Order: sequence, then C-alpha cells, then structure tokens
Amino acid sequence: MAKELKELTKRSENYSQWYNDLVVKADLAEQSAVRGCMVIKPYGYAIWEKMQRELDNMFKATGHVNAYFPLLIPKSFLSREAEHVEGFAKECAVVTHYRLKNAEDGSGVVVDPAARLEEELIIRPTSETIIWNTYKNWIKSYRDLPILCNQWANVFRWEMRTRMFLRTAEFLWQEGHTAHATKEEALAEARKMLDVYADFAERFMAVPVVKGVKTANERFAGALDTFTIEAMMQDGKALQAGTSHFLGQNFAKAFDVKFINKENQLEYVWATSWGVSTRLMGALIMTHSDDNGLVLPPNLAPIQVVIVPIYKNMDQLAEVSAKVDGIVEGLKAKGISVKYDDADNKRPGFKFADYELKGVPVRLAIGARDLENGTVEVMRRDTLEKSVESLDGIVERVADLLKEIQENIYTKARTFRDAHISVADSYEEFKEKIEAGGFVLAHWDGTTETEVRVKEETKATIRCIPLDGSDEPGTCIFTGKPSARRVIFARNY
Amino acid sequence: MAKELKELTKRSENYSQWYNDLVVKADLAEQSAVRGCMVIKPYGYAIWEKMQRELDNMFKATGHVNAYFPLLIPKSFLSREAEHVEGFAKECAVVTHYRLKNAEDGSGVVVDPAARLEEELIIRPTSETIIWNTYKNWIKSYRDLPILCNQWANVFRWEMRTRMFLRTAEFLWQEGHTAHATKEEALAEARKMLDVYADFAERFMAVPVVKGVKTANERFAGALDTFTIEAMMQDGKALQAGTSHFLGQNFAKAFDVKFINKENQLEYVWATSWGVSTRLMGALIMTHSDDNGLVLPPNLAPIQVVIVPIYKNMDQLAEVSAKVDGIVEGLKAKGISVKYDDADNKRPGFKFADYELKGVPVRLAIGARDLENGTVEVMRRDTLEKSVESLDGIVERVADLLKEIQENIYTKARTFRDAHISVADSYEEFKEKIEAGGFVLAHWDGTTETEVRVKEETKATIRCIPLDGSDEPGTCIFTGKPSARRVIFARNY
Repeated sequence: MAKELKELTKRSENYSQWYNDLVVKADLAEQSAVRGCMVIKPYGYAIWEKMQRELDNMFKATGHVNAYFPLLIPKSFLSREAEHVEGFAKECAVVTHYRLKNAEDGSGVVVDPAARLEEELIIRPTSETIIWNTYKNWIKSYRDLPILCNQWANVFRWEMRTRMFLRTAEFLWQEGHTAHATKEEALAEARKMLDVYADFAERFMAVPVVKGVKTANERFAGALDTFTIEAMMQDGKALQAGTSHFLGQNFAKAFDVKFINKENQLEYVWATSWGVSTRLMGALIMTHSDDNGLVLPPNLAPIQVVIVPIYKNMDQLAEVSAKVDGIVEGLKAKGISVKYDDADNKRPGFKFADYELKGVPVRLAIGARDLENGTVEVMRRDTLEKSVESLDGIVERVADLLKEIQENIYTKARTFRDAHISVADSYEEFKEKIEAGGFVLAHWDGTTETEVRVKEETKATIRCIPLDGSDEPGTCIFTGKPSARRVIFARNY
Repeated sequence: MAKELKELTKRSENYSQWYNDLVVKADLAEQSAVRGCMVIKPYGYAIWEKMQRELDNMFKATGHVNAYFPLLIPKSFLSREAEHVEGFAKECAVVTHYRLKNAEDGSGVVVDPAARLEEELIIRPTSETIIWNTYKNWIKSYRDLPILCNQWANVFRWEMRTRMFLRTAEFLWQEGHTAHATKEEALAEARKMLDVYADFAERFMAVPVVKGVKTANERFAGALDTFTIEAMMQDGKALQAGTSHFLGQNFAKAFDVKFINKENQLEYVWATSWGVSTRLMGALIMTHSDDNGLVLPPNLAPIQVVIVPIYKNMDQLAEVSAKVDGIVEGLKAKGISVKYDDADNKRPGFKFADYELKGVPVRLAIGARDLENGTVEVMRRDTLEKSVESLDGIVERVADLLKEIQENIYTKARTFRDAHISVADSYEEFKEKIEAGGFVLAHWDGTTETEVRVKEETKATIRCIPLDGSDEPGTCIFTGKPSARRVIFARNY
C-alpha cells in the first residue's frame, strides 16, 4: 500500500492531530466514504483480532458462550424500556425500505416506494431488546438459568462528532447478555466481568485502569448500575474503556420474561450486560505511543520482533539470512511472532523508521560485521535504546526483553497516571487542577444538578465513584453540601 | 434452556420438515422476531466458530490478512457496476433516516422526518463496491499489489423465501477481496481459493464437493467467471457451498482503480472475490444427519466426546467420577474436547438421546459394573454401534475412533453422492433422472435460453461445468445442438 513516511505531528504541538496522524500513518484505519464510518486496515485489524482472541478466551474461561442475534431490531422493541429508548432514539439508523428499482428517467437506482416496511427496523445500537425478546422463549424455570451469552458484533450509533476508534458511527464490539435467578447473582456477574475487563486492560494492553461505578447521569440507558473501567490518556483526559451493567429486572419486565423459582413462584429474571469495543484501540494507541509512532505492548503486537539484514551484496545477504533462519526458528518455537524483512527494494533506514512507526516491540539488525563478531544489534521500541548483544542465547534474551517491555510500558503508564491523580478541596483548586489535566478526586453532593453545572463550567465529568476509594465524608466542592466520599472528575474522550 | 426431546420428523416422511425440526431441536438456531433473520444459538454458533477458526487459519496460511469495511454503502456506489446493481437492487435493505423522536400523540417513537439522509445507504449485500472505492486510495503502483484482504462480516439480502442457515435475510460470512497486477495472477487466486474451500469442505466438514465453473446465467453479478463447489444433500438436491469469482477489471473500471505497471504504463487492476457463509451449516446438517438427530464430523464438533456415569447412589457416582477424571485428563491432553455430564437431574436415557440429537461423535457410559470389569461402553454416533471396551488404553482408542468416524462419514457421503450421479443422453431420460434426484451429467448447447427453458420445465439448474469433467463433445439434450462437454444439472437449495 502506497505510503510516505512523513513526520507525525508532535504530541506537545497538537495531541489530537498527533492521534489522527498516527492512526492513518501506522496503517491502522482510515475514514471511509460513509460519514462517521472507518475502514479498519489489516494492521489495525490484526491488533483487534489479538484483543478479541484474548477476551474471548477469558469469557469462555468464566463460563460464557457465544451466540448471534439479528442486526435489525423492530422499532417498537426500543420503546418497551422507557430509559433505553430515551437514550438511543436520537442516534438510530433506520431501515424503511427493502428494495431499490431503476429510476424512470434512467438516472440510476432509486428507493422503490412500493417496498416500504410496515414497521421500520433499527440497526442495533446495542442488543438488549432483541435479546430479551428471545430470552423470553428460553426461560421457563430456574433450571434454565443462568444464561451466559456473549456476541461479537457490529453496532451503529449515529454520532454527530466522530473520531477513528474513539467514537465512530459503526463500531465493532462484544456484548455479553446474562440472565440470572437472583439479584445477588446478577450483581456478582456484573462485577466479575468488570474484573475481567480490568485484568485484560492491565495484563494485555498494559493500560492501568480505575474500577468504579457511574453516577445516575452517566449510567447506561436502562441500567440500575453501570460499572466502568477508566483509563488516563497521555494528555490527562479520561477514556471509558469498558462498562458492565447491572440491569435489575428492567428488561425482563419490558419483555415479560419470568421464571418459576425454587419456591415455585413466578418471578422476573435478573439481567446484566457488558461490552468493550474497538474504542480499546484508541486507548491502546493513546496510552503508550510517542512522537515516533506506535508503541505496542508485546502481548498484543501482531509482529513482536522484526529482523532487518544489513548487507552490501547478495553474498552477504545470503550469509546473514542463513544465520537469521535459526533465530527465526528459535523465536517461533517460543510462540513469538517474528518477521524477517529481507525486502530488497527498501533501505534499512526506511525499514527502521517504518517498524518504529508501527510499534514493533523489538528490532534486531544483523550485518556482515555482526556475523564476524557473533553479535546483533537489539533495539527496544519502548525506550528506543539500542544495544549490541551476543548471538549466543539471543532467542532467550529477546523472549525476556519482550516480557520486560510489557512490564515497563505498564509501569510507565501507571506512574504517569498516578502522578496525574490529585485531590481538590475547593472549587478554585478543582478548576485549576482540571485545567492542568488528569483525574481530580473531589467531594460531590450526589445530585445530577451539581454534576451538570460542574460539567458546564469546567468540561469535567464524573468518571466514576471508585470502588476501592476512601469513604471518608466531606463537603461538596460546588455546593458545600455533605458528601459521602470523593469521586473522580476529569475531562474525557 | 427449556426443551422437550420429541421425535424428529423422519427424513423419508418430509425431508424439509426434518431439517427444520433438527435445526430447532438440536439448539442450532431459531427464527427471530425479525422477518427472515435467525438467532444462532450457542450450540450452533460453536460449530460456526470452529468453521471460522479453521477457514481463517487456511486463509492466513495462503497469505491473506483480515480487515473491516463499513456495513453501509452509499446507494450510488451500487450503480457503478451495471450487472452488480441489477443483481442486488431488488433485495437491498435501505437506511433512509438517522433519528427517531417521540410521537406527538405520545404513542411511542416515530421516524424523525427532519433526519432524512441526503443519499440513502444500503446495508451491504456484499462489499465489492465499498472495498474497491477504498482500494482506489491504496493502489498506485505494481509494488502495492497484490492486496489479499478478507473480511468476516454480516451481510443482508432481502430474500422473499427464507430457511434457517440455507437462505436468510441476514447471514454471516467471510468475503475475500483481492487485487492483482495481472489477469493470470487473479485467475490463479480465484482457483486457489476454490481449492481452499474444497479442501475445507472435505477435510473438516467431511462433505465431498464437485469443483466447477458457473454458466453465465448463474454467475455472480459483476464477475467474468464464478467458480463453485457443489455438494449433494441426502435428498439428492445440490447445495452451492462456496463460490470464488474472477472479476476481471470490472470493479477497477467502475471505481477507477489504476496502477503503474512494471513497464511504467497505467493499467486497471484485476480482481477476485470469494465467500462462504453460515449456509455451510445447512450443508453440514443435511449431508450427515439422520432420523435421530445431528451427526457431526469430529473435526468440527464442539463436544467430541461425552461421558455419562451410570450409578445408583452417590458412592457409586464418586467411584465412577474418580475413574472418569483420568480419562478426561487423557483426552484433553490429546486436544480432544470432552464433557463429563454428571448432572443429577437427568437420567442416563435422557442424556443419551440428547447427545445423539446434538451429534456428539463418541459417547462413553461407565457404571459400577464397568469399574469391576475394567470396561466402558462406547457408542459411536455415525453408526450408532455400541461396544464394550477395556478401560486400559481407552484414550488412544477414542482418539482413533474419532479419526475413523471423520473418515467414515466422508466415505459414506461420497459413496451416496457418487451413487446419485448419473448420465442422461436424451431429454426423456434426463427428466426421469432429475425427478429421481441427484446430479445428472448431460450435454447442453451453451445458451442461457436452453438453460432457462430446462429449468422452467424440470426445476433443474446447471450447477456447474465440472473442472475435471470429460471434454468429450456431444449434442444438447434439449435442442440437439452441438455441445462441447457435459455439465451437471440438479435441483438445488
């Protein structure tokens, strides 16, 4: 694919432009011809596939199974749950017709007015309604519970302002939808999946997250409680990386889903839903990358190691290649994905810059002199440090280095994050700290009114009430009214 | 999930009803609230996931990468390729609006007339148009070629008569879209992917297929050549299981995609596309299953072995379980998926019938007496044969048996298929043989007119011109005109 290795905008100059440049130049995604929809390019999709694979394994390890429900939802289904329709109606893509025909003036195809649907269909913005309408037929007794289904799917929300990966009209995600006999079990499931998300973010993405509960104002439309993991980007803004909802009996009531419990009584079913999306790609990019390009955690990098030969003639290349073959074999035997780039139409310097831009964690360069000396040049992408190492034991060294990089970028992100969490005890202090960026722990009186006013004045929202936060009471920074505990405010994506 | 183990309709009584019963009762899929759209239930989806995994591995092994393109396609894109729009316009789901609002009379939500799209969007029936519009920006020179992308996606075609898995309005599939510098390379790619499909069908699905070329009349809308794999169901009807298209330069011309070739000349790019879908589930079900339920090939069975304990009291269960633990461990170590069903609320007879219905290839039953004798009862689903085997070496025996079953059901399907391929040399003979069912090899004069007439009179279509067929010339059974070679006629799904 045609590409020029131009410099990226620097983060310090324009963080937002840096992000957009990076997404395009690292071949992750691009805008499509359809407003708000992106094309996920092969390199970006390869990262998403790795995320999918790991998440899917974690879902299955916690007893979940995959299924598939229809893309289109009858309009009337949305209306069944009052808050749900309120939350999604304004961004629904609506299918009204099922046929095109040739225009009579020969100008092309037009919508056939005779093929109008009796009831319009909505492209799913999320699938609670169609799924609970289905669960109604699956559930009769407590013996049919729990149902622990997940779906990998595309969804559509007509967003007015879109940004690649972070907010797109169509996005890819997984949505878990579970049904339970008791409130306790449903709540435990919602919490369990939050833990799965946090574990995935930290172990695979190397992104530290804060677990918390959303305020009523920020809750999923139709949920009784929304749990969230919040990450901090390098500009100090928060990014909601995954949510898990305790839906109570709202959808069971909306779709009349009852079961006979162990006491032989008819009862409404308890529900959860939980999802992460291609938005995680945005979090991954913005947490670790630098002015040279992507920095990928080894656990999610499509190419973990690249080897570039340095040579003056084909004889030298042949010698280098013979040596490299053994290294490639050794790395593959350890389950490490490695690419030997011996393409003859690009110079080493071009290759170096390209793999830096693409965030390949480790680069090895081997030339004729290295062969003589029994050495290899090793570059680690996270710190850009180079070292000359012995070819003996290089496979083990690289395997160790990948682990080291994974840990290092997590620690770096965590150190940055922790250094940007502060406490504010007055509204003046709060405004200053919000302006400086980062998470601000402050007391809040618990009302939506205050939350909205603070947002209007400072653009900061309540990201969550942290689950492991202190429950020391205080007074609201805005109204001075009593507050049970501090919450996390931040500007956000 | 609530379910009653009722008898299936017998194949001999009503093949079509048998299929529908089986899909529902084996928990593979069910109709949804949306016309023509199905819910793929967890057990059905688990089979599809296994198919996806194997196909995806094969695509990657042949150099392909995955990507993702938008769900919605601007209406005008469809019109760019004349045959393409002709082929798909009549079954397009059309998005015309992007917002709902509350009805003024309080009756619910209605489409907001103010949110009408300037240009309507079509839910992709297939993605050639949006993808070639994207490739335009990716291709400048021969160095950018080939592009070998695949996409796993949902597509939508508004079919009037639908059947679960076989023909649904929404279906899941993969669509490969490749771009090449030469006609030869594109043709070779289309043929290569046909081979991949045939290999997958035979080695994993245990479904024998005939490879061939479609007639002009049956070609994909916009292709110069459509290659196909055709399978035979147990009622003798054909099922098109996968297609691979040589698109020539049609889409490159429609979207103005040119490249500079090695001779420094500007040239249109050559294309292929190829796809298989959840329709394969229908082929799988109808090829092997019987009046007791599903028969799954071990290579795609979500559960390959089920173990059922037979016991009179909890002490006996404990003894049996202790023995079973070792077997489970041994099977898992060989990569065999095994389920130990010690559920106490169902009797062994119910479990036996349920796993037969679900097509689990091997069932082991172990009771107290077996422990005394060092034996286990082994039932193979394909032949329903039971045998008593020694517990010593049972893991190896089961592993061998799974291979044996995989081979046996393939051989059985192939023997059946071959026994139902016949030759007809007159139209009378042809009509008789078509009525009897199966594939009929007959001469055809090469015209669409004859093809259409034969279909009108016999409901038989030309499935393909077989790639490895005899090229002995003859005379058309319908018109008596010269024919270059025999083609395969059959009634089809």
